[in-house]
Amino acid sequence: MNYFSSDFKLGILGGGQLGKMLLFDTRKFDIQTYVLDPSDEAPCKIACDQFFKGDLMDFDTVYNFGKKVDVLTFEIELVNLDALVKLENEGLKVYPSPKTLKLIQNKGVQKTFYSEHNIPTADFKRFENLKSLIVDILDSKLKMPFVWKCTEFGYDGNGVKVIRQISDLDHLPNVECIAEDMVPFKNELAVIVCRNPSGEIRTYPVVEMEFHPEANQVEYVICPARIDNKVAEKARAIALHVSEKFNHVGLLAVEMFQTEDDEILINEVAPRPHNSGHYSIEASYTSQFENHLRAILDLPLGNTESKVAGIMVNLVGAEGFSGNVIYENIEKILGWNGVTPHIYGKKQTRPFRKMGHVTIVNSDIEEARRIAEDVKNTIRVISEIK
Amino acid sequence: MNYFSSDFKLGILGGGQLGKMLLFDTRKFDIQTYVLDPSDEAPCKIACDQFFKGDLMDFDTVYNFGKKVDVLTFEIELVNLDALVKLENEGLKVYPSPKTLKLIQNKGVQKTFYSEHNIPTADFKRFENLKSLIVDILDSKLKMPFVWKCTEFGYDGNGVKVIRQISDLDHLPNVECIAEDMVPFKNELAVIVCRNPSGEIRTYPVVEMEFHPEANQVEYVICPARIDNKVAEKARAIALHVSEKFNHVGLLAVEMFQTEDDEILINEVAPRPHNSGHYSIEASYTSQFENHLRAILDLPLGNTESKVAGIMVNLVGAEGFSGNVIYENIEKILGWNGVTPHIYGKKQTRPFRKMGHVTIVNSDIEEARRIAEDVKNTIRVISEIK
Repeated sequence: MNYFSSDFKLGILGGGQLGKMLLFDTRKFDIQTYVLDPSDEAPCKIACDQFFKGDLMDFDTVYNFGKKVDVLTFEIELVNLDALVKLENEGLKVYPSPKTLKLIQNKGVQKTFYSEHNIPTADFKRFENLKSLIVDILDSKLKMPFVWKCTEFGYDGNGVKVIRQISDLDHLPNVECIAEDMVPFKNELAVIVCRNPSGEIRTYPVVEMEFHPEANQVEYVICPARIDNKVAEKARAIALHVSEKFNHVGLLAVEMFQTEDDEILINEVAPRPHNSGHYSIEASYTSQFENHLRAILDLPLGNTESKVAGIMVNLVGAEGFSGNVIYENIEKILGWNGVTPHIYGKKQTRPFRKMGHVTIVNSDIEEARRIAEDVKNTIRVISEIK
Repeated sequence: MNYFSSDFKLGILGGGQLGKMLLFDTRKFDIQTYVLDPSDEAPCKIACDQFFKGDLMDFDTVYNFGKKVDVLTFEIELVNLDALVKLENEGLKVYPSPKTLKLIQNKGVQKTFYSEHNIPTADFKRFENLKSLIVDILDSKLKMPFVWKCTEFGYDGNGVKVIRQISDLDHLPNVECIAEDMVPFKNELAVIVCRNPSGEIRTYPVVEMEFHPEANQVEYVICPARIDNKVAEKARAIALHVSEKFNHVGLLAVEMFQTEDDEILINEVAPRPHNSGHYSIEASYTSQFENHLRAILDLPLGNTESKVAGIMVNLVGAEGFSGNVIYENIEKILGWNGVTPHIYGKKQTRPFRKMGHVTIVNSDIEEARRIAEDVKNTIRVISEIK
């Protein structure tokens, strides 16, 4: 198959920042792309070959879009699964496969999959809705504290809440959910696995994540994780095991907990380029986006190791600011060694909205960490009028 | 000035591969771009915010385009200079300045500029046309061999010819030209200098170039050049001196000869991102394109040093092939360590047409050089039908 400067068309469901960063590589290889997204202001609207506006959850919209392309992928899991299944049954290459996506879209199903395959994960219990969960608490079948997670449509910490007392359940939606044991952990880690249809498989180094206490969004991603080599090897091995069980194609981002006694527990996975891999654009020999593209086109995978240490800081909208975005002090951080801002192209900021990220690379990881902290304390995502 | 996700508009004259690679960084920073190019198939047509089709040498076309933007730059020197002068006089920021471009567009003027500023360069003589040059030969005022160069509109070796006997002049155009002494040299080197309006200035490491014997196009660009440190320092110092004399803003690619006795002679300069800096996308902390963008927007310049060694191989159309392009064996080279192809997006190949380039990065420059040679001997730019 000739992908390069040819009539081949890659379809991408979702036109957000992940798609936008993927388009850097489709442009680099001159591979034609069609993008479907509901928003006229999607970051992917330019740089793709053709943009289609439409609802990613609508069967017909997704099905008809899929009919226009030769290979179909997605940058967001919230897409119409039935349409993907039909397209795959009709012979279209859909990567990751709907079968994989089906196991991941619903966190309850995902957790059950782990226990069925002896993949270490925190104990949990599934509930059809919030009411049945409350019943279990009242019948003392469910002990607090625990972590409530809605099984679908949650992202970036939305749909996740620590429940310490009944009142913490107030205002939670009455939807399907799970109650997960709270595991005391040292570190949150992630490993991105890359696999092509021919079965070539590679893992990126283990990264270490630090979360924002309130927004529950990643604040720093540090590559390589500053952990013991044995733990790192274990984490990479478990990530490989998970990806083999899912038999996925493309990228699989595996989020994990490192417990106090250095056990590795799977938190959740994402079958796509992931926030925890953004550092790879500047730090790795091959970025996660290029490797996702190589994988779904069944091209040889690129080197996943790093040229230098990389740290990523998310740029999220500052509290108290909404409206036309301004990146305060961005000129200042541009003057620092190894600092690269990525601005996603959202014109409007909101508190905690993901607006971009900054990568800091350095041959010395401690120096990178110092600069990253300065970056975090200097740049602010605000709006013209408060 | 707020450039990021704002109404600010950067205008780019020329929509070829240099513009295309510059657009990766305008997209990364979400800076609005308008591009003017005569071709409907310009590689920049997608990924810019607005594309305008028009003649870059036409005064009105360039002037009216310039009126639409806040800062104007170019990716090719062959643009209407008078329009740029008028726009600059009317207060538009045009970088590099038309004054700089004026000194560079004509090779005769450029060479005279060097001698006037005691910048070392090969001896030369200027001629209004080929006839007057021939007269000088016949009057034995000009000795063969020498290098004939037309003063304008030459690129990639077109408009350059070694003259050993009168018959070598056959079929040369009767245009303004120079006759340049043939200098025996060890190496062709290049240094890219980056400077912003505030006067911050940085040089990239010295690169070493190898040319294709017939096509006279760069075959390998090797960073860092494998030369003595003293020579490298001298080359960087001379490049800085040249850029200060030109007082340019943006990038200035300075091509040089290293003579047998380690003298450095300036060959020519280009006031824009340059083929000799493409390696920087993968190998440098900050690519030449990002630094060009930072420079013309008067942002702080990024680190010009390298993360790893980088070698670039140009992808030019194979002899005997014209038509719809095929990149033979590209899947094979993608499997090798640190190999990144850049496909410019030209649908049609022709013998020696620049279709793309491949960057090979490695912590070991000798290993990179070996892989680069394998790449050169493996990938072929051909067409469907010979």
